[in-house]
This record gives sequence, C-alpha cells and structure tokens, in this order.
Amino acid sequence: MRSIISVVGKSSSGKTTLLEKLIAELKKRGYKVAIVKHSHHKDDLDTAAKDTWRFTKAGSELSVINSLDHLAIYRRMDNYFDPQDISNFVLWDFDILLTEGFKSSNYPKIEVHRNEQGQELLTDPKLLLAVVTDKPLDISMPQFSHDDVAGIADIIEKTIISQNNVSDLEIVVDGVPAKVSPYLKDVLARTLSAMIPDSQNNGEVKNLHISLRRKH
Amino acid sequence: MRSIISVVGKSSSGKTTLLEKLIAELKKRGYKVAIVKHSHHKDDLDTAAKDTWRFTKAGSELSVINSLDHLAIYRRMDNYFDPQDISNFVLWDFDILLTEGFKSSNYPKIEVHRNEQGQELLTDPKLLLAVVTDKPLDISMPQFSHDDVAGIADIIEKTIISQNNVSDLEIVVDGVPAKVSPYLKDVLARTLSAMIPDSQNNGEVKNLHISLRRKH
Repeated sequence: MRSIISVVGKSSSGKTTLLEKLIAELKKRGYKVAIVKHSHHKDDLDTAAKDTWRFTKAGSELSVINSLDHLAIYRRMDNYFDPQDISNFVLWDFDILLTEGFKSSNYPKIEVHRNEQGQELLTDPKLLLAVVTDKPLDISMPQFSHDDVAGIADIIEKTIISQNNVSDLEIVVDGVPAKVSPYLKDVLARTLSAMIPDSQNNGEVKNLHISLRRKH
Repeated sequence: MRSIISVVGKSSSGKTTLLEKLIAELKKRGYKVAIVKHSHHKDDLDTAAKDTWRFTKAGSELSVINSLDHLAIYRRMDNYFDPQDISNFVLWDFDILLTEGFKSSNYPKIEVHRNEQGQELLTDPKLLLAVVTDKPLDISMPQFSHDDVAGIADIIEKTIISQNNVSDLEIVVDGVPAKVSPYLKDVLARTLSAMIPDSQNNGEVKNLHISLRRKH
C-alpha cells in the first residue's frame, strides 16, 4: 500500500493553498505526488466537459477526454469511494497520495486550523500527525505555521519513509483487494520478478503490473 | 488487448450523438463500454474543476476529484496519448473502448459521414468496418443510416466477439507493455489462477490484477 495522508480542516481554513505548496515542495524533493479532493458540490463535475458527461449518462463505465497534453477520466461510482481505490485501480505511478478532506477516514492526518474558526480540532488525536495553525495551540503535537511548507513536508516525508517497504505486491481479484499472507506475497514477488522478459528487465524494474482477464 | 473501435468523421458529422446512442445500445446488450474522446480544445479541461488544476499545475502526477457518486481523474501527459493506455493503466473493467476521433490511429473504424460535407471518406479502407451516412455511397462497404443504431451495434458486437479470446494476460513493466510469447502468457495465466486465494476464487474470477512495486 502506498502512503496516504489526509489534509483536513474546516471550510476556508486554507487546505487547498497548503496542498498546492506541499505538492510543489514534495516534487522538488523527488517524490511523485497524487491528490484526491473530496467535493460536496456535484456541480463541479457535472458542468465540466459536457460531451464526456453525455457519454457517462448514456451508460459509459469510463469517459475519457484527451486534449493536447492533458487527460481527464470520468467515472460514475456506485459505491462509497475510498482514496485507496486510486492506488488499486490506477497504475500511473506515484509515491504518496495526499487527500483534501476525507476527515472521517482512518488515514494519518494533518489538520489545517485558523484561530478565528474556534479552538477545537476535527481530528482524532490518534490519527493526527501535525497541526497547521496561525496561533499556537495548547496541545502536545507538532505545530506549524501556514507558511512553514518545508516543516510540514518533513513530517510527510518521515511518514512516507516509515510506511514504505522495499517492495510491495498488491493483488486485486474482481475489483476487491485480496488478503494475501506476507509469505505468499514474497514467493509471488520473487517468482514474477524472475519471469519478466530479460529485454525489459536489466535488474531495474520499479513497477510490474499483470492483468489477467477472462472474457464473458 | 481489449477491443478498441474508433468512430471518426468530419467536424459536426454527428459522432458524439451517434456514440451516445451506441453506448446505451451496447450497455443494453450487456457490454461494459468505455469511451475516449479526443479534443483539440485545451480549454475543455483547463476550465473544469479549478482546484484540481491548481494541483496539477503545482506538479501533481494525478489529481482526482470525488463528488458524491462521481469521480474525475486529471493527468498531465508527457507523451502522445494512445487510447490503449486506458486499458494498460486503468483497471476498472470494460469490454470495449470506443474512441471519438483518433482518425490516424490503426484501430478499426466506423466513419460518420454527411453528404453535404463532400463525398470523400477520411478512413483507410483497410481499417473501415462500416460507414454511417445520410445518403448511400457508391462503395462496397456496410452502410447504415444515422438512426440505425442497432445495425451499427451489430457490427461492433461482431468485432468484439472476433477479437476476444477466452482470456488475456497483459504485463506492463515500468509503464511499457511487455512483449510476451503466447506460451509464457499461458503458463503465467495458469500459474497465477492457481495461486489466487481460494476464499476469493470459487472458480469465477473474471479479472486478476497483480502490481509489484519496488520502492525508491
């Protein structure tokens, strides 16, 4: 599982601006960052890319629009969406997934706080990595000013490093992540690594994806 | 490889409307459809989901917005985009990928034509499955009226059935599809099928995805 950290906070606390700076800082440090933003406004998506939504409404599972150097993929979700699904279903590579919102998730959290919005925090202390605040709070928790992007990125970097193993194997069966013992994972990882065609290997493979699909 | 069929035609020939109807018809017949639309207008995406683009511009590899039952994934592409990449990198299931546009691709094509736009066709005859036209053309090729959605869907269904094998194994190494012999594919498919944890198997697995990722 790749690292997921949620940036939470009340509306207008400065989450989006902080995340924008964090993405740039983490990228500068060599990390590939992905981000998931939770929106309560259905309109944000419905008004975007009109034709693509015509396809989605007609019943398309995935509607993709490709425009010069940009790609947008739209999908109607039947179930509750968990940010982890991005890791399970999208193979473009990243090292860390930051989320904006998802305050009721169980991911480690950074809470963005403004004194004028009240003293209480939203986050379960057990999940709280740090607080970003404009006025120091009386809590025993790392605290950073809204401008201390480097300090906040340090906390994120420590979390990435502590969570990441040397390698990880994920198995998804019919859309459901499979629970596989560490031993079987290790056997599978070694077997698969050995089976990669030599011409594409050179001992430097970072990501290997295998899809087995039985047709109807 | 899953079936990919391109619907091409001059601007305003009726591609989007036809595709909208085809998606609904194919869905009615039990197929899961995905669609890729090529747009020449960069603005289509830049104006959509403003915050998400702030993240992409800051350097995010993937920017995802989740809103009630909808999901939108934005990605900046460094290279030329091939619709096949959707099959390689996105694991949500579909049976057929239709494209709007991509007229210079090598995928089988259905050309949408209007007599008032001139007699000549855009498509290499070797790639042409059928022509959708408002006035019969003097060519030896299946022709359908713009309203004959069932007839056009029949042609697509035949193509899906003729291209699909019982099962297919795809291996992607560091983002590049690996060329693997049919024999090794068969061995791998049998080995992997046998390794799926029994609790999730029941002999009914349709899709198995394995990701092996070595950390930096």
